[in-house]
Amino acid sequence: MGSIFGRYLRAATFGESHGPAVGVVVEGLPAGLPVSAELIQRDLDRRRPGQSAFTSARREADQVEILSGVGADGLSLGTPVALLVRNQDARSKDYGDIRRLFRPGHADYTYYYKYGTPPQPGGGRASGRETVGRVAAGALARALLAPLGVGIQACTARVGGVLALARDWAFAQADPLRCPDPEVAQAMAEAVRQALAEGDSLGGVVEVLASGVPVGLGDPVADKLDALLAGAMLGIGGVKGLEVGDGFAVASRRGSANNDQISPQGFLSNHAGGILGGISTGQDIVLRLAVKPTPSIARPQATIDLDGQARTMEIKGRHDPCLCPRIAPVAEAMAALVLADAWLAQRAARQA
Amino acid sequence: MGSIFGRYLRAATFGESHGPAVGVVVEGLPAGLPVSAELIQRDLDRRRPGQSAFTSARREADQVEILSGVGADGLSLGTPVALLVRNQDARSKDYGDIRRLFRPGHADYTYYYKYGTPPQPGGGRASGRETVGRVAAGALARALLAPLGVGIQACTARVGGVLALARDWAFAQADPLRCPDPEVAQAMAEAVRQALAEGDSLGGVVEVLASGVPVGLGDPVADKLDALLAGAMLGIGGVKGLEVGDGFAVASRRGSANNDQISPQGFLSNHAGGILGGISTGQDIVLRLAVKPTPSIARPQATIDLDGQARTMEIKGRHDPCLCPRIAPVAEAMAALVLADAWLAQRAARQA
Amino acid sequence: MGSIFGRYLRAATFGESHGPAVGVVVEGLPAGLPVSAELIQRDLDRRRPGQSAFTSARREADQVEILSGVGADGLSLGTPVALLVRNQDARSKDYGDIRRLFRPGHADYTYYYKYGTPPQPGGGRASGRETVGRVAAGALARALLAPLGVGIQACTARVGGVLALARDWAFAQADPLRCPDPEVAQAMAEAVRQALAEGDSLGGVVEVLASGVPVGLGDPVADKLDALLAGAMLGIGGVKGLEVGDGFAVASRRGSANNDQISPQGFLSNHAGGILGGISTGQDIVLRLAVKPTPSIARPQATIDLDGQARTMEIKGRHDPCLCPRIAPVAEAMAALVLADAWLAQRAARQA
Amino acid sequence: MGSIFGRYLRAATFGESHGPAVGVVVEGLPAGLPVSAELIQRDLDRRRPGQSAFTSARREADQVEILSGVGADGLSLGTPVALLVRNQDARSKDYGDIRRLFRPGHADYTYYYKYGTPPQPGGGRASGRETVGRVAAGALARALLAPLGVGIQACTARVGGVLALARDWAFAQADPLRCPDPEVAQAMAEAVRQALAEGDSLGGVVEVLASGVPVGLGDPVADKLDALLAGAMLGIGGVKGLEVGDGFAVASRRGSANNDQISPQGFLSNHAGGILGGISTGQDIVLRLAVKPTPSIARPQATIDLDGQARTMEIKGRHDPCLCPRIAPVAEAMAALVLADAWLAQRAARQA
Repeated sequence: MGSIFGRYLRAATFGESHGPAVGVVVEGLPAGLPVSAELIQRDLDRRRPGQSAFTSARREADQVEILSGVGADGLSLGTPVALLVRNQDARSKDYGDIRRLFRPGHADYTYYYKYGTPPQPGGGRASGRETVGRVAAGALARALLAPLGVGIQACTARVGGVLALARDWAFAQADPLRCPDPEVAQAMAEAVRQALAEGDSLGGVVEVLASGVPVGLGDPVADKLDALLAGAMLGIGGVKGLEVGDGFAVASRRGSANNDQISPQGFLSNHAGGILGGISTGQDIVLRLAVKPTPSIARPQATIDLDGQARTMEIKGRHDPCLCPRIAPVAEAMAALVLADAWLAQRAARQA
Repeated sequence: MGSIFGRYLRAATFGESHGPAVGVVVEGLPAGLPVSAELIQRDLDRRRPGQSAFTSARREADQVEILSGVGADGLSLGTPVALLVRNQDARSKDYGDIRRLFRPGHADYTYYYKYGTPPQPGGGRASGRETVGRVAAGALARALLAPLGVGIQACTARVGGVLALARDWAFAQADPLRCPDPEVAQAMAEAVRQALAEGDSLGGVVEVLASGVPVGLGDPVADKLDALLAGAMLGIGGVKGLEVGDGFAVASRRGSANNDQISPQGFLSNHAGGILGGISTGQDIVLRLAVKPTPSIARPQATIDLDGQARTMEIKGRHDPCLCPRIAPVAEAMAALVLADAWLAQRAARQA
Repeated sequence: MGSIFGRYLRAATFGESHGPAVGVVVEGLPAGLPVSAELIQRDLDRRRPGQSAFTSARREADQVEILSGVGADGLSLGTPVALLVRNQDARSKDYGDIRRLFRPGHADYTYYYKYGTPPQPGGGRASGRETVGRVAAGALARALLAPLGVGIQACTARVGGVLALARDWAFAQADPLRCPDPEVAQAMAEAVRQALAEGDSLGGVVEVLASGVPVGLGDPVADKLDALLAGAMLGIGGVKGLEVGDGFAVASRRGSANNDQISPQGFLSNHAGGILGGISTGQDIVLRLAVKPTPSIARPQATIDLDGQARTMEIKGRHDPCLCPRIAPVAEAMAALVLADAWLAQRAARQA
Repeated sequence: MGSIFGRYLRAATFGESHGPAVGVVVEGLPAGLPVSAELIQRDLDRRRPGQSAFTSARREADQVEILSGVGADGLSLGTPVALLVRNQDARSKDYGDIRRLFRPGHADYTYYYKYGTPPQPGGGRASGRETVGRVAAGALARALLAPLGVGIQACTARVGGVLALARDWAFAQADPLRCPDPEVAQAMAEAVRQALAEGDSLGGVVEVLASGVPVGLGDPVADKLDALLAGAMLGIGGVKGLEVGDGFAVASRRGSANNDQISPQGFLSNHAGGILGGISTGQDIVLRLAVKPTPSIARPQATIDLDGQARTMEIKGRHDPCLCPRIAPVAEAMAALVLADAWLAQRAARQA
């Protein structure tokens, strides 16, 4: 168990940070969809590090290769689509000296006790590099959803104390931090720069918007759409919280203020974030993710080694000071995978 | 798809609010565990309505019957355990007049568009009554976890503007709202009473604590423990948000303040809430759920009927003014199911 | 794992031979199908013992109760359909004296070593009584397939040395052994009577015919239609072999004689039994099952007890001298479940 | 759905005959197992074509590359193991002229109606080449089973009218047809040569023997060991029948002759083929597979083209005249995958 997402559209990712390659096998993609390396590359390029001062200096071409599942005519065959990205810039020497220490905030400790394996270079399977496979799979899911008019976007709604109020999605796509609010983009960048200068990192909030989702997706009670989305989002490294629609704001609210009343023209509000009873309403689906500050920091931290001895470590090398802009495309991909899966489920389940 | 929870320990719930019965079939429970109707009844009694002014007046004995999977010696056989609870107090006349209206905040609308079925009495499958099966299954999961020393508890950490600061778990068990703080229990009760008196309802926050969880549970990357828990919690009706450990507080924090450093005696803090890289650390697992105000309120609301005509409706009858005390035992059960499932997974997956 | 059949249409059976009840929860049945207790009872009545000299004398009313998933209008709701049949004629005294012996040819030995449980009365979960749940679920699957024109029938093609050559399906339905050949029905009955008179039992072959199956069902390479059918058939107690189409006859044949050539009017033969590359061709699907002689016989047999001591046992009480007529309706049900599941899969997977 | 085998040990194969590559991602392999390219290559070499006059002339190096899941120390990490084999000898011109015809006995017709895709070069996903992924995955499963003492072998028990009586497993490994009987190897070879000389092909029977299997594997009722093995075997292209233990011979037998009686020293016979009630007995597991004659023959056959017009075709190029020696290693791999999966299941399910 562990590395296969989905029920109808299934994505089996593989790969460690410093191994030969990362990738994914996607099963259940219907035949006849136009699939090309370019299509997938576009999404991979958006998640790639080395794009700005705010993302890790690791530079990988991340060229995807389609190994199967697409015919000579460029259309999906209905068979598994295997996608491969070689690891080129592995530089394991960066990590060699820390193979015997558990980095605080990382999975080294838990992997060691689960698998009996010492800390792997770059985090091994627990590295963010694993998300290459998710983003590549997500591109296929988007290709399936596109004809339905479903659009999925993510932005950095907050970094530390700086909140984005506006939602200018075009601006967010171009902004290095994916800030959707031109007014605060500068302040957001400054907050990250400040943390970085102090050898530290900063947390934030990523917001995901899925529009054009048809009414009726999601299968109660064990496979509710919000439950599937929650599992997908909490499965992204560094995410510690999730809100659907108004999220925690509902805790202090009364029913009369929280219910989305209905008119012949549709719902009069969308506090629910597009999901009722685990099924999509046809309104925008809105999610917010709490993203923890990057655990790799250049400050001395207490830890232990494999022998249980007390040690102090400073983590050097290339690290994103804020995970939000890296998580945004992954969150988009995961949302796309869940929605495409739910769409296939609904095709099977619809009224006899 | 839709009504089977879990991978190794699987729980298939069934039943509608006003149908003949609700229940569950649990598969994967190892043989040799003591299982009795009393054991399950204890948990069912804790979720039962009709216990106080704050929970729905619906009174059901909710007597569970074990249909299979337990031998004459009272030990589990290793075969599926089927558990049945009859619906006795169905009173569908309460609902008869609203069969053609979509209740705001309920699943009537989405079920109609998904399944083509009109609003069912009491919400049908979308009713909280479905959770009887989950709680019964959870009692079996607890029986599996108990010998490991795993304890799972849930309380109402907040209602509207009233926050519980202390965590007196014994007090919480006895309090009608499950408030864990004797100092604010009164104020919490008053807030709910006030909302009820005004024909309204109130949201809140439920907190779940799992202690004694062994290190190493959870399977990266698709079945991370926090992802499985998130899916389980968001699958509870009315839950709109989730925090693991410090949750959204991490968004404004720096790495140096958020990392849980490690000493030879163990972790120096637990911001992570007991999970790192999707795997349990052995520390307490802490979750918080945002619970929306009960959508059934006695105030006039705008809606439409099956023909799309504008209508106004007031929802009468028995309804919990605050869902938190009803959700707490369900959250405990869901957490138990996830942890027991992860425990079985780990038995299979452990080092060769 | 272990008691949930299917992928899209999932049937979770439960129940032991001498426990309170047997039954099934069926998930994934689309909404809007007419479902009634009568519909299910019809199939259950066809599997019921006590119908003739050739089937066990155990007499159970086997009245099915629908617990969930069907609305007041008699249409499926799209939610899980739970079906319950009480065990009424349990007479565990019949078995009390053999609780410490492993019956040869039965699952007592393997269950003991797998689960640590002593032989259960009547075989417990390993009893043929468990198939009540399968047959009930199969009736729902048939209801889904019926509008497509799919018909599924099974007969006893052979008993011991007596082979049925003709296929008179109406005759088979009425014949106590389900013999499809009026010419040999007498001889078949005589062979069984003879074995019974000598305290023995007899093996045979059951043939399953599915007609009207649409082209395109089955998912290569792991969920081929013949693979799914094979798993379903070998999962029936007492089945030790399976043939699809011409089966073992192909072993002695040349390609030129075995290939089904194609004309504009369709295939010129059906050696393949309606499946090519794991996908239905639209022709009749033909399966044959090797059925072992009933292991419960009234002759002395060597065995051991729970302490490993040598013992001799004769099994008394009511037992079918030939399993074929009991297996036929179960095989029909399993085929229906697989085909309905494959049909839902194909609805999800069809070209984009 | 369709290309992921297993429940606990899951193998997701990918690849088409003339696409860039074939391979597999294996999930659920415990950490700490020695895994090397050599280990996998050994099994791949045994399935490779071009080894004798009796197997297709296609020559591929079939060098496997491990992409993930193995640490620098050569031990499995517990993470997904991805295995890649490039297609080098694709020569799609061999097939170019037949892209518009449905080859009799092949999956072209059914794939076309399922997916809407025209016949793919070399059969595409339906090609035997897909089994590279299965055999590679099987090598990992064997590595997991080896320490338990489980051994799995397959041989060609029959070709056309020639039956092997002896079981000389060492001889079978070296024989080009995998014949296990030195006395008849010559005659078997001659029968195949004869068919080939006449532009034809020949069917046969493959026998699989698994020894050293621990008692207690298999999960009744839906995941019986024989049911899982049957699904695995019928999922191999060209297999049209399966026998467990004595198979169809039980049909003409009485219970007194078929039951395996038990002594304090163990079972007195093994008619059951090592499985009772869907659970392994600890005896040898014996399976026999009916293998159809290779459908690709150099004789004129009637078929139709994509427009439904009548056509005659002769299939030229390299083709195995008898599939048995090619299927034997695949059957071994599939048996290994099922047994390893059942072993992991049993680790999770064992008595509490």
